[in-house]
Amino acid sequence: MKVAVMGYGTVGSGVVEVIESHEKVIKKRTDGEMLEVAHILDLRDFPDDPHAALFTKDFNDILKDEEVKVVAEAMGGVNPAYDFTMQLLQAGKSVVTSNKELVAQKGVELLATAKENGVNYLFEASVGGGIPIIRPMDQCFAANNIEGVAGILNGTTNFILTKMIEEDMSFDEALRLAQENGYAEKDPTADIEGFDACRKVCILASLAFGKHVYPNQVATEGITNITLADVAYLAGVHGVIKLLGQIFYMNENRIAAFVSPAVVFRGSQLASVNDVFNAILVRGDAVGDVCFYGRGAGKLPTASAVVADMVDAAKHTERRKIFGWSEGAEDYVADYRDCIEMQFYVRAKADQQAVQTRFHDVKFLSRRGQPSDETAFITDAMTENTLRKKLEGVDVINIIKVTNY
Amino acid sequence: MKVAVMGYGTVGSGVVEVIESHEKVIKKRTDGEMLEVAHILDLRDFPDDPHAALFTKDFNDILKDEEVKVVAEAMGGVNPAYDFTMQLLQAGKSVVTSNKELVAQKGVELLATAKENGVNYLFEASVGGGIPIIRPMDQCFAANNIEGVAGILNGTTNFILTKMIEEDMSFDEALRLAQENGYAEKDPTADIEGFDACRKVCILASLAFGKHVYPNQVATEGITNITLADVAYLAGVHGVIKLLGQIFYMNENRIAAFVSPAVVFRGSQLASVNDVFNAILVRGDAVGDVCFYGRGAGKLPTASAVVADMVDAAKHTERRKIFGWSEGAEDYVADYRDCIEMQFYVRAKADQQAVQTRFHDVKFLSRRGQPSDETAFITDAMTENTLRKKLEGVDVINIIKVTNY
Repeated sequence: MKVAVMGYGTVGSGVVEVIESHEKVIKKRTDGEMLEVAHILDLRDFPDDPHAALFTKDFNDILKDEEVKVVAEAMGGVNPAYDFTMQLLQAGKSVVTSNKELVAQKGVELLATAKENGVNYLFEASVGGGIPIIRPMDQCFAANNIEGVAGILNGTTNFILTKMIEEDMSFDEALRLAQENGYAEKDPTADIEGFDACRKVCILASLAFGKHVYPNQVATEGITNITLADVAYLAGVHGVIKLLGQIFYMNENRIAAFVSPAVVFRGSQLASVNDVFNAILVRGDAVGDVCFYGRGAGKLPTASAVVADMVDAAKHTERRKIFGWSEGAEDYVADYRDCIEMQFYVRAKADQQAVQTRFHDVKFLSRRGQPSDETAFITDAMTENTLRKKLEGVDVINIIKVTNY
Repeated sequence: MKVAVMGYGTVGSGVVEVIESHEKVIKKRTDGEMLEVAHILDLRDFPDDPHAALFTKDFNDILKDEEVKVVAEAMGGVNPAYDFTMQLLQAGKSVVTSNKELVAQKGVELLATAKENGVNYLFEASVGGGIPIIRPMDQCFAANNIEGVAGILNGTTNFILTKMIEEDMSFDEALRLAQENGYAEKDPTADIEGFDACRKVCILASLAFGKHVYPNQVATEGITNITLADVAYLAGVHGVIKLLGQIFYMNENRIAAFVSPAVVFRGSQLASVNDVFNAILVRGDAVGDVCFYGRGAGKLPTASAVVADMVDAAKHTERRKIFGWSEGAEDYVADYRDCIEMQFYVRAKADQQAVQTRFHDVKFLSRRGQPSDETAFITDAMTENTLRKKLEGVDVINIIKVTNY
């Protein structure tokens, strides 16, 4: 079967590589069918690439090739990926993608278009890189009501936090190291401000509860405010700080979803997820907690997930009925500050006395070199709005949510 | 759609419960179809059960009911489950099961019979209880060559080892506690001798590499020789002892597979899997290590996996092409002692001098209360046969494999 690849960056070139290096296993999975890359779309020139003959700068070469049935979109970004994907689906071609930005923004529309045209739009690689999560969630939780999802969804920030926690490196140093290792971009904003994790939360929430969640509905806070002082206070109580995406089911018409740093205590399966690894924990009412762990990014892990989707699309020429969510609503995602109770870590310029008069029951923390006018503590469970009210007039340095996952 | 349940023990009664309590989510996944339990087969009487009217002791009531299209087999054991399953598949009914013993012994035959008759034989619940592993392995690794699999596959033994490691409880005490909590049977042999884990290794190996592996091909060692002394030596180097099933790909015609206690060091995702939880780690050449974690047993987790398979079978009246492995061969599973190199933990009545003359490079361990004539150490990587040769004449107390997962 002829296939095409759009975008020849890290993921796209990985897709071509995995197709070629895994011919045998792919053939086994497709009952003898091979995937043959017929076109590679990229505006750049790759004169020395062994696939030089396959390159095109004209999208129509793919769109008009009737033998091409499956296309991998690895361009990233919403435009022109959205437009191209639409045209391909309307032309009766299946599209698979690792493009989380596009799925998070336009998933509901693209899935509906795929359905109308009897083809597939698959995006296993868009969340958790090579970790199988979208299919297991859709299929294996068919007999569970999902109560919530929590995930370490961004490898770059997890690498930075791991270096801060395990090697006492400052945020700036750790970011620099991540950049040197190729884990962080020159402009690391999308990672460190949580935008990347936010898109993945949108996809997971849409899938888990059947209604589209858009990035602007998910309150998102990055890790730039985390300091070694916070790390040290929490180490004393076996807590680590992770950038978590969290989703809470409230009722059929309402969920809460947000991205933020969160304290995870030892004993949680999320606490031992280090370096660039990702993990996604799904809580079902029958199955309990199930956790999926692996490399959330990287050329070959992500590419292998894209190719697995291509194999699936090649095997099922009729549309698979496994995905689908409907349009969301403006008030579908609640303001979590108002309705989700959790514990909080607070660091403030205050004395314990002042804290104790405001809070019923707190656990004070300590660290080496703690300034005499600084207090850090963990509160009881309450909403964030309640917390903020209680803290009015206190000179707060940092607040970090404590997760119950 | 009418369905039937065979066996009304823990899992079978859980299946009926999950079908009833999850009507809404099931309907959503089947496009409106409901699962209606029409028969429950059990030789025992349940006069006070609200489903009294559904019970039968006659298998033919299910076999002959043409409206029943999907049957859950939760009887356990090979007979009569094997015979019943065969007849059902031949009659054009799909069968789903949690019965690892049957799948491990007869999987290849039952899958072939399902194929011949255009129906499904599904067994997600047979490994890892509620953890989705069989589908992810089959589908999402379509573009990976699997290099190996390692798993904590038995909750009972993991509970016992966790109590020994974290609470300094003796094996006997921990076993008693497991029995009191309902985690271990009165006769705990199948768990503590590794037989249960062995069956799951067979299923995972068959699935991963496409050829049936039988329980008698998998060298199996339980946890009854593990003592608190071993636990203490290893704690000093951040190692924990887990009962692991390990599978190594060698070539198309040969794998290694065994069940044994194994040392896992901190940093491995398997090291933090505690209590009755299970975890399965799959190593792919493109994706790297992927790990699945959750409750490996228990009424509702297992039942929810069975019901998810029933939903899948109900949705796909035509046979799904996702599983299938062929007959194995007597020499398909190599003797790992001969060909797999690994490090070993050794405890012996010997002095360090005697050890050092036999081994090139060892790491000595220590513990509180260590007898003066006892030595414990971790060797370099070598085969077990080489190790045994080097240890000839040494008064060995215990040997435990060190895993590289």
